[in-house]
Amino acid sequence: MTTAMPSPIDTANAQALERIFAARPFLVGVQPARELLVPFDDYTVLHAGPPIEWERMCGPLRGAILGALCYEGWAVDERAAQALIDAGKITFRPCHSASAVGPMTGLITPSMPLMVVENRAFGNRAYTTLNEGLGKVLRFGANDASVLQRLHWLQQVAAPLLHAALQRSGGLDLRVLMAQALLMGDEMHQRNVAATSLLVRVLMPHLVRVAAASVQLEEMTDYLTGNDQFFLNVAMAAAKATMDQTMHIPGCTLVTAMARNGTEFGVRVSALGERWFTAPVEMPTGLYFPGFSAVDANPDMGDSAIVETLGVGAFAMAASPAVAQFVGVGGLVEARRYTAEMLEITIGRSPHLLLPTLDGLGVPTGIDIRRVVETGLVPWINTGIAHRQAGIGQIGAGVVQAPLACFVQALEALAESWDSSSR
Amino acid sequence: MTTAMPSPIDTANAQALERIFAARPFLVGVQPARELLVPFDDYTVLHAGPPIEWERMCGPLRGAILGALCYEGWAVDERAAQALIDAGKITFRPCHSASAVGPMTGLITPSMPLMVVENRAFGNRAYTTLNEGLGKVLRFGANDASVLQRLHWLQQVAAPLLHAALQRSGGLDLRVLMAQALLMGDEMHQRNVAATSLLVRVLMPHLVRVAAASVQLEEMTDYLTGNDQFFLNVAMAAAKATMDQTMHIPGCTLVTAMARNGTEFGVRVSALGERWFTAPVEMPTGLYFPGFSAVDANPDMGDSAIVETLGVGAFAMAASPAVAQFVGVGGLVEARRYTAEMLEITIGRSPHLLLPTLDGLGVPTGIDIRRVVETGLVPWINTGIAHRQAGIGQIGAGVVQAPLACFVQALEALAESWDSSSR
Repeated sequence: MTTAMPSPIDTANAQALERIFAARPFLVGVQPARELLVPFDDYTVLHAGPPIEWERMCGPLRGAILGALCYEGWAVDERAAQALIDAGKITFRPCHSASAVGPMTGLITPSMPLMVVENRAFGNRAYTTLNEGLGKVLRFGANDASVLQRLHWLQQVAAPLLHAALQRSGGLDLRVLMAQALLMGDEMHQRNVAATSLLVRVLMPHLVRVAAASVQLEEMTDYLTGNDQFFLNVAMAAAKATMDQTMHIPGCTLVTAMARNGTEFGVRVSALGERWFTAPVEMPTGLYFPGFSAVDANPDMGDSAIVETLGVGAFAMAASPAVAQFVGVGGLVEARRYTAEMLEITIGRSPHLLLPTLDGLGVPTGIDIRRVVETGLVPWINTGIAHRQAGIGQIGAGVVQAPLACFVQALEALAESWDSSSR
Repeated sequence: MTTAMPSPIDTANAQALERIFAARPFLVGVQPARELLVPFDDYTVLHAGPPIEWERMCGPLRGAILGALCYEGWAVDERAAQALIDAGKITFRPCHSASAVGPMTGLITPSMPLMVVENRAFGNRAYTTLNEGLGKVLRFGANDASVLQRLHWLQQVAAPLLHAALQRSGGLDLRVLMAQALLMGDEMHQRNVAATSLLVRVLMPHLVRVAAASVQLEEMTDYLTGNDQFFLNVAMAAAKATMDQTMHIPGCTLVTAMARNGTEFGVRVSALGERWFTAPVEMPTGLYFPGFSAVDANPDMGDSAIVETLGVGAFAMAASPAVAQFVGVGGLVEARRYTAEMLEITIGRSPHLLLPTLDGLGVPTGIDIRRVVETGLVPWINTGIAHRQAGIGQIGAGVVQAPLACFVQALEALAESWDSSSR
């Protein structure tokens, strides 16, 4: 835009950017989904990405749903779960429709505990599941007895303890934690070791004071300290609580959410509210764990791209040469190129989330769909690669690009809405 | 050296370098100094740096000694402590004479608990105090009742608990922890937030299982999680346990220790064993906390330069743009210059301790006094700046250089020893 006067679009976008930078996400508690997402009817399942019907769902998402129906006690086994679905008894909705986000399959059912992130600058909240850890987990479509047992432990032991510790802490300031972790080599999508370690340090003094039974404290300490990616879900909810404040701004062309359900990639744009613009999701390219290759890979999946929507993840690749190597991108020079490219399609740089390897310049923030369409450059996303069959889990890590078609559709829809409103 | 055949010196240096790279320091326990440093007679005080008599000691070192005599119960107050010293009843020795290291004043007396680092590749051990935390502390020369109370808590509560946790862990692999922390922005002298956080994560599962009384667990958790520099002492002992294996190699011109007592800077060279080569210590240059300036500063002090002797600290400045800013050096470009300059005076690069901002090249390791004297480039050291009066504490942070005279003297002494042995 080279006009002397700011256009109404630029003004709207600047307002959205201000709200992003003013956000103050705090991790404040952990409560059952049915108490937070009211009404959350039984036989309802939230999933990652844009809306999708059972028939078009990928293997891991189906596997996770069958497991979740058993976990809730709505079905005694997979066969009974399948029958419920076939009978049309199960309602599927995106997590994003309930101010929530989930990694990979992203499943949320009413009994699951959700972490609560409160955006104290605006008062809104966002929700996400507790990270299950590595190995066989529901988010990768596994659903056997060990997976369900783990989910019950999260519900019965971890959630109440973590909630009590967070209540005692008065809430953890996630902007501070995330800024510090970026200075420590996390990009907050594929690498969260610094943020997780910092969170453990902040939380342990509260945890040792609220844990009544020592066995529970021991289990909880093992859980928190045992998973480098614990913070991923927290970062996702922080990004969701931040980006939700940019929805519904008239004239605003910034992206408010990017998410994948394993079949389609979906994008939301501020001025068009909760409408999704979708296109077939791409396959990630990256490095595979020994024994696996691209033929085993599921198309990209999960709400985790909300962190790129905020400006971290692949947008902050320069913060994390270690991740650049892990996802097969190369070294520091290559990592910087990803961040530099994302500067082409964003309208600002965060004053809080800074990149140590770029002498403290902020992460690229505020994806403008006009710039995406003009330049043909689409957002990069760092991602874990899931096996396309349910239950096998992560088989690699890589990068994936948002499909350009989503942005083109969104821009066309915007133009149409402006056209019709000016008539 | 441009000869086709390796000289005996090069062979000796290569052997020393191999020992450095083969070292496997583990943090294994915490025990009273009197049980570890046998014999550790009463009325003996270990201090940082090369040997020094009371008359030439700086303010903070004197203040710390008076406090330590009271802590041990050898004197009821400062006046009585001074009388003991005046009567010649107190023996002063460097920590380095007992396989130990201490930051700043570096005091060790028999009742103090020491962390034990075992070099499992060779079986030798090194010792260091528990970091007292920030504020009024003995290592900066403070000695009032609150300081002594803290030392007693470390002795009675922290040491036994930490020892039990470490015993249960089987020992913490410090090479792994340090390598990971370097990738997370620590240079392990002025910044240890990553290493400390990682250590807390590894240790907490053991700590919650060995703590009997919940009050002690709470106090201990607060202590471990409350001090970003907890790991500094651990890194120092790891460096000491590593570098001690390079002492006494005939013909070897590598530096095995650098240390300061607040009056003199001292250097040891492999072939010349435990002999110190000293020169007046320099003043650090850097940034001061509000209200303080260079006129308040004490000359450089402490055994902490053992981390630079290993190749971290200022040698790894490129790992830590945040420290480069904190000590007033500048940004990433300037940080890299420090590491590049240290490559000029070292003979190798660590295969384990890698620099993320230099695409994984190792830290400069193996300071060759020949190169120092030939180039006139002396080791850089990152350092905290202490107030010159006892008890005020840290007033800033900066960089300081080892005095060239130490290296010139050492090279002359080496030449003399070779000359006499060839006659």
